[in-house]
Amino acid sequence: MRFETLLIVGGGLIGSSIARAARETAQCKTIYMADTSETACQTITKLGIADGVADGPADHFAAQSDLVILCTPSARLATTAMALIPSMKAGAVLTDVGSVKGHFVDAMAGQVREDIHFIPGHPIAGTENSGPESGFAALFKDRWCVITPPEGADDTAIQALTKFWEGLGSQVAVMDPSRHDIVMATTSHLPHLIAYTLVGTAIDMETVTRKEVVKFSAGGFRDFTRIAASDPVMWRDVFLTNKTATLELVDRFIEDLTALKRAIRWDDGDTLLDSFAKTRDIRRRILDSDPD
Amino acid sequence: MRFETLLIVGGGLIGSSIARAARETAQCKTIYMADTSETACQTITKLGIADGVADGPADHFAAQSDLVILCTPSARLATTAMALIPSMKAGAVLTDVGSVKGHFVDAMAGQVREDIHFIPGHPIAGTENSGPESGFAALFKDRWCVITPPEGADDTAIQALTKFWEGLGSQVAVMDPSRHDIVMATTSHLPHLIAYTLVGTAIDMETVTRKEVVKFSAGGFRDFTRIAASDPVMWRDVFLTNKTATLELVDRFIEDLTALKRAIRWDDGDTLLDSFAKTRDIRRRILDSDPD
Repeated sequence: MRFETLLIVGGGLIGSSIARAARETAQCKTIYMADTSETACQTITKLGIADGVADGPADHFAAQSDLVILCTPSARLATTAMALIPSMKAGAVLTDVGSVKGHFVDAMAGQVREDIHFIPGHPIAGTENSGPESGFAALFKDRWCVITPPEGADDTAIQALTKFWEGLGSQVAVMDPSRHDIVMATTSHLPHLIAYTLVGTAIDMETVTRKEVVKFSAGGFRDFTRIAASDPVMWRDVFLTNKTATLELVDRFIEDLTALKRAIRWDDGDTLLDSFAKTRDIRRRILDSDPD
Repeated sequence: MRFETLLIVGGGLIGSSIARAARETAQCKTIYMADTSETACQTITKLGIADGVADGPADHFAAQSDLVILCTPSARLATTAMALIPSMKAGAVLTDVGSVKGHFVDAMAGQVREDIHFIPGHPIAGTENSGPESGFAALFKDRWCVITPPEGADDTAIQALTKFWEGLGSQVAVMDPSRHDIVMATTSHLPHLIAYTLVGTAIDMETVTRKEVVKFSAGGFRDFTRIAASDPVMWRDVFLTNKTATLELVDRFIEDLTALKRAIRWDDGDTLLDSFAKTRDIRRRILDSDPD
């Protein structure tokens, strides 16, 4: 199975990066794109990253495509999928790049045609920038892409999708949707919520001016602002669709922070030292494992 | 006033970087260093970044120095200062690089000789690495250094210390110690406490393995691990000495996080969107203001 023709629905950072990467690495002969925003479509056309662009319904492209990748905001994934499925080619693969998998998989239960291979996915890649201009071909290089094939999914289709992502430079991991969501709640969703909160707390301080926050941001704050500059709509949808895992993580985090706060209040330096010392090792392991 | 002879007490990341930078930019003719750790002194000697190294009391160096910079952990600043003051040259400047100013200034009240210029300081610079090997001359370049001269401090001494830091590449800001501490609690101390907590929460998850945390850290978690790899002893001392400001900030942060948690639980997407949208602007302002 090879994907000669590709349709990317949603031309933001991820969608436009897939288009660029698929072109650069010659994964597909023809690349179509669709976006509900007229401005985005004009930009995509100007950038010349697709062989055809649909501003609105993309049924005519879906009918010709061997691989359809949904790159819309999470909240619109299921409705977008259901609108396209009737036009899709028999034997084609339908995937997505959403940050939450359980919610989408549940919404699609019983909605996918038997002759289509539905294999949800999630490339662990991104920047704080949004829109078609912000994409770049190397975004997926040396990154993980998680795919969550449903039980009984066709092996050939799984292998073809794996090869596609490997072709863009990624390593592919296969996971269960609910495991994906708890792992991502830990390594991505909680960090984003915390960064948004911290930056908000800082700019709401009446006794510290925004000018001072900007001026002295090198002391640690700056690192949080990159994450807190991520797409607000996308992240609203992530938290609302991965609610259970996020709420559990937030509760644990508040418990842990409260314990450290109590240690500070009662001058319990040993508790602080123990907590701070145990986090160094994970940094070393991340640096060791990273090809960057 | 020029600082021909410099004594740096504490040869860690900051102290050893000052030695390197002062040498490279020819701020001083003679640079002495002292450290209570024998190993650190051996390393400093091997690195050749000082003209003399004292393993223990540094009174003989203090007696010759025009500028004494204390780079010890915050908790030891006051006792180190009091041990050296009796030997210091009349007219010399005594400063430090501690991350918290109010606690040190309070501890020194009435303890400084009239013929010595006591001007506390804090360069807003650092990395997650510790020890003499981790220092480098460019650490202070394009960074802010806050100095907190007490009321009635000598203008010539303030200007000389300002020129010294400017000579190392920094910009100098003059602030009141208590204002410094609340600004730093916002832009540095809270971010560090949050990063330590978040990394701790993640590695304590029973349902997510450390291997998974490392593997999928690119989703946001990775940015926190750099800060959470900072020196545990230094940061214990920061929180215990800047207790009031830190506790106030942590309380505000927990309030703000709880509000977002409630919005997630009740599907209140508008509250999430409003909160996430307002944090983007500060990132742009930081990038605009930054010479990096």
